[in-house]
Amino acid sequence: MIDPIRSLDDLAPGQSWDLGTLSLPLAEVVAFAARFDPQYFHLDAEAAKESLFGELVVSGLHTLSAVFGHLMGSGLIAGISIGGNQIDSKWPAPLRPDEPVAVRVEVQEIRPSRSGRPLGIAKLRYTARRVADGVLVLDAVGTHFLRR
Amino acid sequence: MIDPIRSLDDLAPGQSWDLGTLSLPLAEVVAFAARFDPQYFHLDAEAAKESLFGELVVSGLHTLSAVFGHLMGSGLIAGISIGGNQIDSKWPAPLRPDEPVAVRVEVQEIRPSRSGRPLGIAKLRYTARRVADGVLVLDAVGTHFLRR
Repeated sequence: MIDPIRSLDDLAPGQSWDLGTLSLPLAEVVAFAARFDPQYFHLDAEAAKESLFGELVVSGLHTLSAVFGHLMGSGLIAGISIGGNQIDSKWPAPLRPDEPVAVRVEVQEIRPSRSGRPLGIAKLRYTARRVADGVLVLDAVGTHFLRR
Repeated sequence: MIDPIRSLDDLAPGQSWDLGTLSLPLAEVVAFAARFDPQYFHLDAEAAKESLFGELVVSGLHTLSAVFGHLMGSGLIAGISIGGNQIDSKWPAPLRPDEPVAVRVEVQEIRPSRSGRPLGIAKLRYTARRVADGVLVLDAVGTHFLRR
């Protein structure tokens, strides 16, 4: 179990948390892609053999969304999260369906509001690495508004 | 109907396409958030009144994914898209369920491969503006690998 963060003021750059693992089953990979990223290398295992990836791979937006959902579902910041307005996301390597990834979140930057309001901005970096080989498949930085 | 792009070489910075409108129904907004962004202001209209937004709003990841799906579904680049490895996304203003947005895509940068391979990198900016008031709700730049 994760110990929830109670205030932006309890965060400092460099802190990090391992949030366990997740994997994305083929049926969800295909359903997500059909709606949000309809490209043949996310939809059709046979056709995907001819793609740059050589096989069916998870849509990067699916990986990002699942890791974000995993972070929110962990309870780490859910109690103080007010919203957010930016995510910069990179996918350095592909991810296959059913391949477990380890999720980690790290505090990159903290900016308490100067207006005196009881909130501030936290830049959080979330990463996902394939458990099998440690390869980074998601490297994202989100800008979160958190309560103090 | 959109005229599909046949090659990276047919693209130039500054070109843009209006891709029509989309909206996200409440049922999908809640289902997406339950799986990928379980925060009360995306899930519970009554509780969301107490949020920063004052009402239930669409998860930014849902807006991004829907706009991306709309772009891919338009056929504009589907025939030459090989993959991508980065999206930097901003959500300058909130979006409500069922609120129509106009989707636009613009060529920001083109880099043909120097290795002689028949592909290159296109940075495409996708935006979504609320039809009712023109307010920008999504401003994203994606790095796409496209065939030449």
